[in-house]
Amino acid sequence: MSPKNLQELLDTAGNTVELLRNSQLGAYIYPVVPSEFTNFRREVIAWRDTAVLYDQSHHMHNIFISGPDALKLITDTGINSTAKFPVDTAKQFVPVSPEGGVIGDGILFRDAEEEFTFVGRAPVANWLLYKGSQGYNVDMVLDPRSPSRPYGKAVTRKVWRFQIQGPNAWPVIEKLNGEPLEQVKFFRMGWMNIAGEKVRTLRHGMAGAPGLEIWGPYESYDKIRDAILEAGREFGLEPCGARAYSCNTLESGWIPSPLPAIYTAPELRGYREWLGADSYEATNAIAGSFLSDKIEDYYTNPWELGYGSFVKFDHDFVGRDALEAIDGATQRRKVTLAWHAEDLGKVLTSPLGDGPGYQFFDLPNANFGSSNFDSVVDSGGKVVGLSMFTGYSANERAGLSLATVDPDVPIGAEVRVVWGEPDGGSRKTTVQRHEQIAVRAVVSPAPYSKVVQESYHAGWRSLA
Amino acid sequence: MSPKNLQELLDTAGNTVELLRNSQLGAYIYPVVPSEFTNFRREVIAWRDTAVLYDQSHHMHNIFISGPDALKLITDTGINSTAKFPVDTAKQFVPVSPEGGVIGDGILFRDAEEEFTFVGRAPVANWLLYKGSQGYNVDMVLDPRSPSRPYGKAVTRKVWRFQIQGPNAWPVIEKLNGEPLEQVKFFRMGWMNIAGEKVRTLRHGMAGAPGLEIWGPYESYDKIRDAILEAGREFGLEPCGARAYSCNTLESGWIPSPLPAIYTAPELRGYREWLGADSYEATNAIAGSFLSDKIEDYYTNPWELGYGSFVKFDHDFVGRDALEAIDGATQRRKVTLAWHAEDLGKVLTSPLGDGPGYQFFDLPNANFGSSNFDSVVDSGGKVVGLSMFTGYSANERAGLSLATVDPDVPIGAEVRVVWGEPDGGSRKTTVQRHEQIAVRAVVSPAPYSKVVQESYHAGWRSLA
Repeated sequence: MSPKNLQELLDTAGNTVELLRNSQLGAYIYPVVPSEFTNFRREVIAWRDTAVLYDQSHHMHNIFISGPDALKLITDTGINSTAKFPVDTAKQFVPVSPEGGVIGDGILFRDAEEEFTFVGRAPVANWLLYKGSQGYNVDMVLDPRSPSRPYGKAVTRKVWRFQIQGPNAWPVIEKLNGEPLEQVKFFRMGWMNIAGEKVRTLRHGMAGAPGLEIWGPYESYDKIRDAILEAGREFGLEPCGARAYSCNTLESGWIPSPLPAIYTAPELRGYREWLGADSYEATNAIAGSFLSDKIEDYYTNPWELGYGSFVKFDHDFVGRDALEAIDGATQRRKVTLAWHAEDLGKVLTSPLGDGPGYQFFDLPNANFGSSNFDSVVDSGGKVVGLSMFTGYSANERAGLSLATVDPDVPIGAEVRVVWGEPDGGSRKTTVQRHEQIAVRAVVSPAPYSKVVQESYHAGWRSLA
Repeated sequence: MSPKNLQELLDTAGNTVELLRNSQLGAYIYPVVPSEFTNFRREVIAWRDTAVLYDQSHHMHNIFISGPDALKLITDTGINSTAKFPVDTAKQFVPVSPEGGVIGDGILFRDAEEEFTFVGRAPVANWLLYKGSQGYNVDMVLDPRSPSRPYGKAVTRKVWRFQIQGPNAWPVIEKLNGEPLEQVKFFRMGWMNIAGEKVRTLRHGMAGAPGLEIWGPYESYDKIRDAILEAGREFGLEPCGARAYSCNTLESGWIPSPLPAIYTAPELRGYREWLGADSYEATNAIAGSFLSDKIEDYYTNPWELGYGSFVKFDHDFVGRDALEAIDGATQRRKVTLAWHAEDLGKVLTSPLGDGPGYQFFDLPNANFGSSNFDSVVDSGGKVVGLSMFTGYSANERAGLSLATVDPDVPIGAEVRVVWGEPDGGSRKTTVQRHEQIAVRAVVSPAPYSKVVQESYHAGWRSLA
């Protein structure tokens, strides 16, 4: 009999790591938006040099939450303080499991006193839907992400969602608006005019340049998009395709893909029974060189992902006890790893000549699962961190990955990322038989900036 | 005033080569079909090792031609003999211009005495539509290819079109059919059963293994596709995504992308006035290192593309006089070039480190225009051919390109392909500033098979 829910699936599978490492789901797809409008290098360069239109309409779930208990649901569920959460602001919302592992993250908009919108990957959306069904007086409407492979079928969403970003973003925005627009603080919401429509805005930005996320009813998608592209032309604004989009996070430093830490806590048995055997949590693929029998070793806590400052013990929330037991100062921390060109070159050329070669490194997005865990090792081969999102930046002309590393690993240290899975690779559909290779990388800040590598790090086991 | 047709556009542009080399159309896209179902290497390997389902439903035009003059139209327009063209057979149909240059090619099915279907790229479809409007008693219905970037909009065609190919194709076909199916001769049409439907078949094959092209009304697309995938599972049949599909021709040896030779012949002025200023002919992109002021230098004749045996002077047709003046034995001939791994490696790693680097070589399809013309040079730098379709074969683990080379260039000779455009590159949207590189390559048969390179070719200017 086939499993009816995640819990039954886990019970049947025996080992959760084995199950998820051999998922047949395939790569994480950024759907519907064309792969390239011009070419991905040009689109990547545009967000640093001129301006881009990111189309975020399709790859994220929306949940519209309303009702008298909406704020309570959010407060009970997130590590974030809600003591200050005015209408027309947003937060990067992070729930954790009772064991303290991050379930995921996303943007939570406060649209009105009792109305919120969550935008993010499936794990937090599912968790909110479940929690909201446990005695809260809330209405919740899920607007699921578009199909990964629509294959010519019509796609629709409740809202379109764009970002106008880059050094020339603000002139484009004000031209569209028809008059100056106040640059409110980061993550404050507002309104602007586009093509005769009033649309919602969220103050955003990249590398210090102010930008906006904007959204509105899906019916006006084409009209709004056309107006932005038309207005942006004189400022060098480019539409950004899915291929380039997927790697903007390598430069901005956000790790999009923690494994939802929901597989083990006894308190979450009910949740796992609620989750389908075809849910994201049941089918998502763990990829990479890091291998442990224990699924808990793939969990990350808020400090490891750079969310330590969000943890506020001014409220009760799921996982509070676990987080209180953690010393934030001694946790792994988020960094960018700048991959050594010569070593990455060996990977890029390995499709040629005798096999098996290395795990294919696609440009610009090299991830080959839903959640990625490559071992980061020191000169002695000791695992000192996990590399969790990997690709190529056409701005930096370098391979980069986002990682969480031990606190004693200094910026500027040379480490190695083990690229490729052990034993020839898992059975994932994205994996062909391959060998592993240790790629040198320089520990760098997140968001990325190039560091001059120090020749000697007293007390640390660098390769240099 | 903006040009109303191709002729006006050419008159305005002045130089046709400049116009097409700087087209803003972008890459040639294989639309709608998902990029990858598993990963492109696996899908490529499947067509050689097990079986694949190619989905050809979206990237080609169909024209349905019927009426008393249908055969006459075809006879007057193609180099092919129609003396023997029974109902339920197909031909690879090749029309040429009055100057003898190939306009394009495609498959022409004879569905009934007065009914034909042409399937192929735009240039032949447009030419047939135009010719058919010039006094022939025919009805013509165009079913245009699907949009390159459907962007969530519903797509529909009149028919779906699949191929079941690979060494295990026939067992899958007979399992679907429910009983043995006669392996009729190549390009003969028939019928088979799939999921309770009778569908049309065309005998096809790859590398000697029998396969079928099949088609039917678009309404049954999902049902037929699901049935094939289900039946094929036990035989290792894989659905082939657009990314892998685009490079199968590197192994089979078909050059899909000649430039339609319609820009210069005075007799075609009426056609050029009929073609829109937004037609394929007006917007298609010439890409590559070969540069000439004369658009005629980008034309190819039937012998150069391997279609010499199709030329039959048993009938009158457009371009006959020009072809009769050509000595087929002294023309360039079609070959495969096997790219040197070390040199291609330099291209693959050039996105890393200091720029500008080389023109990006995407895997597995490296073409960056509609028609591709890279200079093939001998040891003295003399142009001895044109490389016209370039990419990577995961079966051969090598870069391959299809080329037409001078008759004295022997199989086994080492030549160089100049990769990248002169002067830093054209203004095409697929091109970033780059440098050129001469990549060594071994002249090999088309269809490709690996040759043991001879050390010495008497009388030829090889690099070896």
